Amino acid sequence: MLLRVKQLNLSAGRPIAVLHRDTAKKLKIHVDERVEIKCGKCEKCSLSSKPHCKHLGKKIIAVVDLAKGLLKENEIAVSQEVVETLGVERNALVHVEPAQKPLSTSYITKKILKHTLSYTEIHSIISDIVNEELTEVEIAYFVAAVGLNDMNLNEVISLTRAMIKVGKEMKWNHKYVLDKHCCSGVAGNRTTPIVVSVIASAIDHLKLDAVIPKTSSRAITSAAGTADVVEILAPIEFTRQELRKIVEKNKGCLVWNGILGIAPADDKIIQIERLIQLESHEQLVASVLAKKIAMGSTHVLIDIPYGKTAKFTKKAAKHIKSLVEKVCAHFHVKVKCLITNGNQPIGNGMGPALEMRDLIAVLTRNKHRPLDLEKKALLLASELLSLIIPKKEAEEVCRLMLDSGMAYAKFKDIIHSQEGSVRESDIAKKLQLGKFSELIKSHKVGRIVEIDNKKIARIAYILGCPSDKGAGIYIHKHSGEKVFYNEPLFTLYAENKEKLEHAMGVLKQIWPMEIL
Amino acid sequence: MLLRVKQLNLSAGRPIAVLHRDTAKKLKIHVDERVEIKCGKCEKCSLSSKPHCKHLGKKIIAVVDLAKGLLKENEIAVSQEVVETLGVERNALVHVEPAQKPLSTSYITKKILKHTLSYTEIHSIISDIVNEELTEVEIAYFVAAVGLNDMNLNEVISLTRAMIKVGKEMKWNHKYVLDKHCCSGVAGNRTTPIVVSVIASAIDHLKLDAVIPKTSSRAITSAAGTADVVEILAPIEFTRQELRKIVEKNKGCLVWNGILGIAPADDKIIQIERLIQLESHEQLVASVLAKKIAMGSTHVLIDIPYGKTAKFTKKAAKHIKSLVEKVCAHFHVKVKCLITNGNQPIGNGMGPALEMRDLIAVLTRNKHRPLDLEKKALLLASELLSLIIPKKEAEEVCRLMLDSGMAYAKFKDIIHSQEGSVRESDIAKKLQLGKFSELIKSHKVGRIVEIDNKKIARIAYILGCPSDKGAGIYIHKHSGEKVFYNEPLFTLYAENKEKLEHAMGVLKQIWPMEIL
Repeated sequence: MLLRVKQLNLSAGRPIAVLHRDTAKKLKIHVDERVEIKCGKCEKCSLSSKPHCKHLGKKIIAVVDLAKGLLKENEIAVSQEVVETLGVERNALVHVEPAQKPLSTSYITKKILKHTLSYTEIHSIISDIVNEELTEVEIAYFVAAVGLNDMNLNEVISLTRAMIKVGKEMKWNHKYVLDKHCCSGVAGNRTTPIVVSVIASAIDHLKLDAVIPKTSSRAITSAAGTADVVEILAPIEFTRQELRKIVEKNKGCLVWNGILGIAPADDKIIQIERLIQLESHEQLVASVLAKKIAMGSTHVLIDIPYGKTAKFTKKAAKHIKSLVEKVCAHFHVKVKCLITNGNQPIGNGMGPALEMRDLIAVLTRNKHRPLDLEKKALLLASELLSLIIPKKEAEEVCRLMLDSGMAYAKFKDIIHSQEGSVRESDIAKKLQLGKFSELIKSHKVGRIVEIDNKKIARIAYILGCPSDKGAGIYIHKHSGEKVFYNEPLFTLYAENKEKLEHAMGVLKQIWPMEIL
Repeated sequence: MLLRVKQLNLSAGRPIAVLHRDTAKKLKIHVDERVEIKCGKCEKCSLSSKPHCKHLGKKIIAVVDLAKGLLKENEIAVSQEVVETLGVERNALVHVEPAQKPLSTSYITKKILKHTLSYTEIHSIISDIVNEELTEVEIAYFVAAVGLNDMNLNEVISLTRAMIKVGKEMKWNHKYVLDKHCCSGVAGNRTTPIVVSVIASAIDHLKLDAVIPKTSSRAITSAAGTADVVEILAPIEFTRQELRKIVEKNKGCLVWNGILGIAPADDKIIQIERLIQLESHEQLVASVLAKKIAMGSTHVLIDIPYGKTAKFTKKAAKHIKSLVEKVCAHFHVKVKCLITNGNQPIGNGMGPALEMRDLIAVLTRNKHRPLDLEKKALLLASELLSLIIPKKEAEEVCRLMLDSGMAYAKFKDIIHSQEGSVRESDIAKKLQLGKFSELIKSHKVGRIVEIDNKKIARIAYILGCPSDKGAGIYIHKHSGEKVFYNEPLFTLYAENKEKLEHAMGVLKQIWPMEIL
């Protein structure tokens, strides 16, 4: 069918064509199906006797959206990708016909029908996801098929490998490339900057041929991700080349993984999973390990917290541990999985600035530092280091790094390499909390029996976390502690009054502390 | 966040908001998530001292799409639904915040997690599908969860009831309300107009207190649906009131189900299923029976063809039969399920005009009529009638209706009531075939062992079916018949030369007749 181009001036990330509903009906095309668009006869072509257009014969496949009103029946609106590929201008004529789906959709159907997929098939799906060849609905079917039918071990390994291969990979000239990951869901659990500082300073101290090129994500549902927290003191967006320089100089880094092109498929997959709060263990393990392996890691520590209000039950944590160990064995990566108690938040602060305060307090040996955060960070650091040196030595050196201030010095070196200021006055200024706050006191006497991670995250989100860096929640009391009447329980911080008021309202419905 | 409205002039069927990518990032909103849009402070409001706007406080929830280029960061483009609800004009300011998903999405998650859903939960999902409250991705998750986790009988009954309740229902003042359905997948299987004509004339002849208010669909993947075929001779779009008049006058009708509002959810569900060629038996049974029950049917015949190239295997057909019988028992509908052989096309013609020619040949007792179509139609008609009168009598009267010409007279009465001309010259004119044709002859001697329904449908589609009414395939020989060298096998018809040539090309890749 010959249609006239009405440009949409829309860059949707993939080729999109908007058709009039009646035109789509004639083409027997529905929303989310595909059309092939070929350069037709434009005004210029029809004037000359011979086709002269350099775009003649070019074609592109676009996903269809429908509209009434915007378009006449003989018109088509196309996104920037179509305009660029075909070189068409407004009012040009294009041939539009129904197009085949990508081959990978037949593999998704195959998985839906509970068949096992080969590496080639899984690679085809993951590659099409990364290249925006699949629609959200098709990805949702893949996610559902993986989540509901489970993948066998070979498929999880194939998925991991495919996720690695569709992205960039880093290689290091070091005997040991260390990394850690926490499958979190526990509020305030900001151990990474401490662990990286401790490990990197220990590498220097022990003259190990090792690095810890740590990349982190931003928050998805929590009050802050490591990237959101580090960003307070220094930029976190670097290229792979810049990252390498920072790591070679300091033995470690604290960089965002978003623009490195390392295992890029899971961003899209996680986004589709979130729409229905579905998360498959197989997908999770493949995503996490693909990132580590593509970064060139040789020795990895994975922390899997479990608990009533954490992301996983103990049973799920064990299942993930077993999957991680099997996949790592296949890829010759030495791994240790810790299943830790995630029944309550860790540290006192939840929110970017509050969490940075907590971890600086630990690194600077402040006497009010949160000891639960210190304990967790030391455990993770020494378990990770013990993958390459004897355990007792690892524990001792990690504590030494912290106590001696060498870890804090390393932390500042990294921040400095990442172009952040390490002047104490600058740091202090950046740690300012939201100027609107509200202290919440206890209305009864008793013992705190539960602090709900999910409710804390929800309230922090309403307060403005993680984009409002000074927003968040400071917890004065932890589970197990006694509280008296009128004693402070927690303080809410926000950068604007409306958000604070909104959070105060929500607090009445979802009260995060159980006192008995 | 306060954004400026840039109208999109797009009517998408549900509220849509297009945000700049960076704005979405600030709101922590992704594609396919939702925002709440509230009337903000427009130029008018800000001029007066008091808010005067009648739209103040109005709000609407919209699904988010992202764009670069079309919009500035402080702008939002909204679909017609948003403009109408909020009464906002171009450049008005609106408050935009992340919004909650509909409650029904949590039930979809529940089904994904393999829990059983209650009627209320299923109703909430189906109702939100019909009201365009759910996105395609959310519907895909529901479809996947139902298809992969299976529903138990109570859930299938709930799904059927919910599908009925979200649409319109018809009641009849007759003792028997008959209906038939074929879960097709078999090319050329156009029995419905014959069955309806035979049954309606038998109702007259036997003075039964019965009607057969048959509604049919258009083709989805086949060469033609009953609606596409009937449309050649008469309009098929009527309101429920008009349908009632046609049925009360003629005891039957041949009407499209598309605009009646009867069990409207399955259109959307089938569209999403098609994207990945997923079809759950539970969903199929609920869809089919909801339409019958909502139409007020009391006695129903369901034909389930099976075969290598039909839609179902024999095992699947048996499963569907068992489900149909259980659900019908619950709703007190008398049902008979026939599992029939669907190993090859039925009748000679595949395509709207060709199929109409076949069925008129049967009704007019033409000596070249396709006897396989006649046999199938007589079987279905007498099985359906035998639900209300003794079987032997049913068989005799059905044959009598056909042989006596009373069925054909009834067919013409229905066509006439549906505002179609029944002058033989008009009918002949409407049965014209595509003027481009190609006779395909046998290149070898042997016996036809298979005619592939799916390949026939694919070629018919390329020839222009079902929108090109004269397009299609005429089969000269059926399975089991001997063919000699150079004997005609089938003829392709098309309304334009390009389509015929395209089909000839495809024919080389997917040859539909196996001769041994």
